[in-house]
Amino acid sequence: MRMIDIIEHKRDGKILTNEEINFFITNYVDGKIPDYQVSALLMAILFRGMSDEEIFNLTNDMLHSGDIIDLSKIKGVKVDKHSTGGVGDKTSLVLGPLVASCGAKLAKMSGRGLGHTGGTLDKMESIPGMQINISEDNFISQVNKIGMAIVGQTGHLVPADKKLYALRDVTGTVDSLPLIASSIMSKKLASGSDSILLDVKVGSGAFMKTLEMGEELAKTMVSIGKYFKKDTRAILTDMDEPLGLAVGNNLEVIEAINTLKGNGPKDLTELCIKAGAIMLLQAKICASFEEGEKLLQSKIENGEAFKKFVEFVEAQGGDITYVLNTSKFEKAKYEISIKSNKSGYITKIDALEIGEFAMKLGAGREKIEDKIDYSAGIILSKKIGDFVNSGDELCKIYTNKENYEEIIKEIKNSFIISENKPENRKIIYKVIS
Amino acid sequence: MRMIDIIEHKRDGKILTNEEINFFITNYVDGKIPDYQVSALLMAILFRGMSDEEIFNLTNDMLHSGDIIDLSKIKGVKVDKHSTGGVGDKTSLVLGPLVASCGAKLAKMSGRGLGHTGGTLDKMESIPGMQINISEDNFISQVNKIGMAIVGQTGHLVPADKKLYALRDVTGTVDSLPLIASSIMSKKLASGSDSILLDVKVGSGAFMKTLEMGEELAKTMVSIGKYFKKDTRAILTDMDEPLGLAVGNNLEVIEAINTLKGNGPKDLTELCIKAGAIMLLQAKICASFEEGEKLLQSKIENGEAFKKFVEFVEAQGGDITYVLNTSKFEKAKYEISIKSNKSGYITKIDALEIGEFAMKLGAGREKIEDKIDYSAGIILSKKIGDFVNSGDELCKIYTNKENYEEIIKEIKNSFIISENKPENRKIIYKVIS
Repeated sequence: MRMIDIIEHKRDGKILTNEEINFFITNYVDGKIPDYQVSALLMAILFRGMSDEEIFNLTNDMLHSGDIIDLSKIKGVKVDKHSTGGVGDKTSLVLGPLVASCGAKLAKMSGRGLGHTGGTLDKMESIPGMQINISEDNFISQVNKIGMAIVGQTGHLVPADKKLYALRDVTGTVDSLPLIASSIMSKKLASGSDSILLDVKVGSGAFMKTLEMGEELAKTMVSIGKYFKKDTRAILTDMDEPLGLAVGNNLEVIEAINTLKGNGPKDLTELCIKAGAIMLLQAKICASFEEGEKLLQSKIENGEAFKKFVEFVEAQGGDITYVLNTSKFEKAKYEISIKSNKSGYITKIDALEIGEFAMKLGAGREKIEDKIDYSAGIILSKKIGDFVNSGDELCKIYTNKENYEEIIKEIKNSFIISENKPENRKIIYKVIS
Repeated sequence: MRMIDIIEHKRDGKILTNEEINFFITNYVDGKIPDYQVSALLMAILFRGMSDEEIFNLTNDMLHSGDIIDLSKIKGVKVDKHSTGGVGDKTSLVLGPLVASCGAKLAKMSGRGLGHTGGTLDKMESIPGMQINISEDNFISQVNKIGMAIVGQTGHLVPADKKLYALRDVTGTVDSLPLIASSIMSKKLASGSDSILLDVKVGSGAFMKTLEMGEELAKTMVSIGKYFKKDTRAILTDMDEPLGLAVGNNLEVIEAINTLKGNGPKDLTELCIKAGAIMLLQAKICASFEEGEKLLQSKIENGEAFKKFVEFVEAQGGDITYVLNTSKFEKAKYEISIKSNKSGYITKIDALEIGEFAMKLGAGREKIEDKIDYSAGIILSKKIGDFVNSGDELCKIYTNKENYEEIIKEIKNSFIISENKPENRKIIYKVIS
């Protein structure tokens, strides 16, 4: 078998055989196929797509390119969730304690962020002392003890994805549905949980710009999960404006804490309750979606959800005095209020732009080696549909950088204000299972 | 400017700017852009195509990536020809002496073959003593003296094409019209002639399988030539069966000699007379195509065409006693007659298969380091349209290899025999200028 033939088959629109896909992944991971052949194949896949069977085979070969975590020592159904990523997405920090407080077992491996803001791990590390590098044994015993853990990748998981993703990132081949789906699902499957809930973000601030694209990705990933006999479901959720109000690492942790205490933004709260209800169904803790919603709501109201968050922070070495009193969190040197210069309804808040401004203020990484400023970011004062008078505050920016003048000027343009009230928005567009 | 943006622009169907193409070629030749980014761009070009302006800019940047030969010291119009390659294509060896005997100046740089049979240089080297590595000064003075020279590439010509072609060859990106056209034309333009005749082969034994594909390539190359203010014309010619009868290096040289003496196969003779007449028009030696045909015919009849071939071989150090007495050429150890096992009209002789059998018999290279057996090859006894009785000879194979049994069995299948007489064939389908 020769790599050149595999490239030409895909280029010509043929279906690659299981043997061809296996040859490609195995030999690429072993360093026997050069990057320049793989990038040509990836571009051909981007143009030609892949059949379901090709995607299953690709995912399977990637999955088996490294370790697969064995979670069998954790009692009960192990639930996992994954978000395709958006601006202000602190869902895992709310959802984890919420479902764990209901008895679900969340053994989650998460990633760091590159781009707008940090990933879940970066947000966690904005709590002083919080550890994310935990041995597999301690990870398992923590989940058995308190019902949840969120850690950095342990073991040698899906090396094929690491190599492929690095190459896709520099060759314009990220934007391919079969490659995105197999990348996400191979990592989720290698993490060893019994069920997976996929939060596919859709809109200007997400990777998937349209509902159609998001739905196609969601369906593909759900079908992969089912092929591997995992209870896999997906929700398509709005990312046309940032999720909640806070964008930036410790700002988002504070918002997550407020949400767990029942004082969170409406959209974030609704998303966490609904996603949580699906996870409780997957964990077989509730018999119906509505029962799940009620149970989760009660855990917020009786303080158990927040209590679980405190346990989680304590178990991973974090200083819980910050959690108990969020005014202790480090504050940015500059806090600037951005005012509207016109009146009307907010019809758009460009999530991608807000994310990029947050990064420029210090909240995210442009390069892998950049250091994150945990206190930097943006807090929205308004959301889409709100009415503002000229002079009302649109948002506050938080930064330790001196050169924020340009951002102050530009950030106003991310808010589109119009005379007409926009239609009411949904946070969850669709559920796929 | 970043290579990743250039890849994404082409991937998304945008027209690349002159600056983008220049950035890509210049930095790739300088080793500043890695192969894996270039192969992704090449695959995107294969899918998206290129506009005329992009192709002109690409050709221009490739052309200027190395030396450009200065032929101004050669008096008169310098004519050049290029064939896209086929099986049994010894046209240059006939056409060169033919047009030179009429006073045209042919200063041709040629290549070696990889695949079926050797290239023109390999065929020339089957004449003992023949030199193909000649200094630029000697090359120019030979053309001034006898009207023609065919040599290997001198100088540092189009390094961008060398690098790109090597990469295309292993990444499934050879089959792209803009890349083929810019590759051929950048080399022809760098070779410095005033006019270019392109022989675009079409059919089962050619790179271009259909007349439509061939015509598109021919038109693109002619438009590139015109953009660079060269008199560029193209002929679309048949390669559904091998050209002439001989396939293999010294076998083809003998056939070229016979053709120059007026005893060549009909299709090869017709092609050389018609292509030659176009070249005489380009050289401004004749006022009409018909006048050119007559002049060329007279040069065969009066022996001047063959005399020019002898001068050419002598000028480049070849042993003319072989040319004067072709029975001196090295003969293969085995000469096997292949007989038909049915009666009927020959409706197809698969040129590609015949080429591949010739290679297996020793006439061509599978790898660049393979040595060619000059005496190996195939001579057809029949052409498409001929009638054969069962037991009649279809072809003879010539080889020094012992393991020819398999080929003897298989080669019959390359001849399709039917009850119905096929339509008469044309050697030249179309002229484009």
